[in-house]
Amino acid sequence: MSKKLSGFPEFLPRERIVEQQVLDHLRRTFELHGFANVETRAVEPLDVLLRKGEIDKEVYAVKRLAADPAEPAELALHYDLTVPFARYVLENAGKLEFPFRRWQIQKVWRGERPQQGRFREFTQADIDIVARDVLPFHFDVEVARVMAEALAGLPIPRATLQISNRKILEGFYLGLGVADPTAVMQVVDKLDKVPAERIRELLLEQGLDAPQAERILALAEIVTTDTSFVQRVEALGVEHELLAEGLAELAQVVKGASDVDGVTVTADLRIARGLDYYTGTVFETRLEGWEHLGSICSGGRYDELAKDRRSTYPGVGISLGVSRLLVPLALAASRSVPSAVLVAVDAEESRSISDTIAGALRYRDIPTEVAPAAAKFGKQIQYAEKRGIPYVWFPPSSVKDIRSGEQVDADPTTWTPPLEDLTPTILTKEQLS
Amino acid sequence: MSKKLSGFPEFLPRERIVEQQVLDHLRRTFELHGFANVETRAVEPLDVLLRKGEIDKEVYAVKRLAADPAEPAELALHYDLTVPFARYVLENAGKLEFPFRRWQIQKVWRGERPQQGRFREFTQADIDIVARDVLPFHFDVEVARVMAEALAGLPIPRATLQISNRKILEGFYLGLGVADPTAVMQVVDKLDKVPAERIRELLLEQGLDAPQAERILALAEIVTTDTSFVQRVEALGVEHELLAEGLAELAQVVKGASDVDGVTVTADLRIARGLDYYTGTVFETRLEGWEHLGSICSGGRYDELAKDRRSTYPGVGISLGVSRLLVPLALAASRSVPSAVLVAVDAEESRSISDTIAGALRYRDIPTEVAPAAAKFGKQIQYAEKRGIPYVWFPPSSVKDIRSGEQVDADPTTWTPPLEDLTPTILTKEQLS
Repeated sequence: MSKKLSGFPEFLPRERIVEQQVLDHLRRTFELHGFANVETRAVEPLDVLLRKGEIDKEVYAVKRLAADPAEPAELALHYDLTVPFARYVLENAGKLEFPFRRWQIQKVWRGERPQQGRFREFTQADIDIVARDVLPFHFDVEVARVMAEALAGLPIPRATLQISNRKILEGFYLGLGVADPTAVMQVVDKLDKVPAERIRELLLEQGLDAPQAERILALAEIVTTDTSFVQRVEALGVEHELLAEGLAELAQVVKGASDVDGVTVTADLRIARGLDYYTGTVFETRLEGWEHLGSICSGGRYDELAKDRRSTYPGVGISLGVSRLLVPLALAASRSVPSAVLVAVDAEESRSISDTIAGALRYRDIPTEVAPAAAKFGKQIQYAEKRGIPYVWFPPSSVKDIRSGEQVDADPTTWTPPLEDLTPTILTKEQLS
Repeated sequence: MSKKLSGFPEFLPRERIVEQQVLDHLRRTFELHGFANVETRAVEPLDVLLRKGEIDKEVYAVKRLAADPAEPAELALHYDLTVPFARYVLENAGKLEFPFRRWQIQKVWRGERPQQGRFREFTQADIDIVARDVLPFHFDVEVARVMAEALAGLPIPRATLQISNRKILEGFYLGLGVADPTAVMQVVDKLDKVPAERIRELLLEQGLDAPQAERILALAEIVTTDTSFVQRVEALGVEHELLAEGLAELAQVVKGASDVDGVTVTADLRIARGLDYYTGTVFETRLEGWEHLGSICSGGRYDELAKDRRSTYPGVGISLGVSRLLVPLALAASRSVPSAVLVAVDAEESRSISDTIAGALRYRDIPTEVAPAAAKFGKQIQYAEKRGIPYVWFPPSSVKDIRSGEQVDADPTTWTPPLEDLTPTILTKEQLS
């Protein structure tokens, strides 16, 4: 019965508290910036999901067990939150106010082979801003900044937001006289997995000459934490209108997001996101010391996120892989329950006294539970200790910090624990060892 | 593409805010009482789900699209949160501290025919307390009380928590000399759908005599808001040890939960929950004026929630159907976005001034967005109006309540909106019309 399913991680309560706090922080950040929440159903019609050809093998089909076995499945679990959101926008276009900022945190499912940081069921946290017909460029800056602020507030290794712009790559390749810039982009996109020497060979195989390949690789080496990338690109001596537009856009995003404390923001011209349908800004994100996990947070601008008979809906967004983000964490909270206080029970006949004390504490928002049995006080203290509950209340009017042993007289209608004990805190690896 | 799927409801942002506030309130209540959160994966092995025979046709099977079509599905979406929780308890028994209180709010899926209040994808909010080997009875009282407090704090029609105890029914039937009390319970369970006259016939068909059927129906008519049901049952003149035990237990639960303001708590001896494996306390809940929705919140005690080679895990819990609970609501929040303030933009060149003002407001936890374009101020105010954002800030230092028209000078590092404007509020039906 209790066979664990590979790729479907589940947390113990002490671990889940860490995940909850991460999710709470993300929500708080998104809502502070005015993003509205949307939840879409877990399933989409198969034909909606299969429009992007490359992912069909990863999809989980869903079918009523009572349905005819010969009938093909018509539904499948969503594998990201972008496709459902695009469908939601079209379905509700008449009722939404554009530009529309939304955040969405939900599980997604992919039938891939599980490995470190790659799951079959995992949580994504997406923000997108979508408009009808025209989406001003400052929203690219906003999305980068909001996600940078969200990452900066998390107890994770330092994140580097790597930003590029498809127009720079495409314009540069066109300026170099490359016939098929998309094909080149897909080759360059492999740079974090394949050595530069091999990329050069692949470019030559595409019919490029050696100086072209040289400059394409030189472009991909440019990484700066400020707008100096503009000069370095210009120094490569390639000119094209699209390139100039891309450089100006990327400079604006880097400038706009680089003053967020706690994260590094780079212009990184290796980032291409070759297989997605981005049309301008593109984002990836890596965690210091955990680069092997790949990008934990990616996105960009789609000039055509969705389209109906009347309108086009351009969008810009980023998707954060919450489950992958949690991999580097110790995943331990200071306690396994929300309770800050355990009210001891003298005798079963007087349990209602303890219940009343607990009620008074909860009334002032102090998470409290009552001991399960009128056991010896030593055993009741042990119950609190095992769960990491910091305070034990002895009826009627005495409360003990069981870490320090300090016990004081107190009134349940006025006593309050120090703020740092009110909710569980996330332990660092040092505190754990 | 945008075909709506029947039974898979999705909310507009203004509706979703209501659902979010309901979920936030539930979480806050559960955590104040020390319940820890658990999330289980969406899928379970099919054999785990099919153990309870009667639900197999409602299950959605899940299978990788790339898998062999001839292979049967091995996974399915969970149809409740109790079966996954029982599996989770067994899988993690060595790492959990018992008694273990947990809350769990997740989507569940059932392939039933959709109708009002019945969906194919819906949200459940469960609390359970589970122990190893022995679970003291006071936890039955606690679970009832916590859910009563949770319901009392919601903007819904008045809820009636209807509580009964299987031991009363079983003991009463045994005391009457009935051979198969379970069969009788399943007949009596139909009382809210089938007239009493028909129930009487069904009982006679089971081989009972007329006086037996009479007293069984008389028992089922007993509904009290206090412990006076004990005397009324005793007046029926049936005696059995199990009956006495059940009466004492039910009296304890009703007494313990009946002082929660804002909900009605009843001992209701019609409640049997005939098809579930409860062994003592059973709960159902109905909303005033919305009784046709059926029970929105049900549960009870299982003496054997789970079992492994070494131990039995008794549990008591209640499951709230959040999606059904939302049916009577107007489902409209005072605004469609979290933003309390829109910062206007004078000109695109000075957008950074507006961004700085927004940053200062957000720094003090005031949800704020910046206008999408430096349009005429009238148009910017309209942007706020359409979303229900109450305040528009005009740089550098003036803020207008666009409902009253009142405009004041203000400093973004100190100005705060009234608390009731900080987050969206839920509108009543009267406010809407």
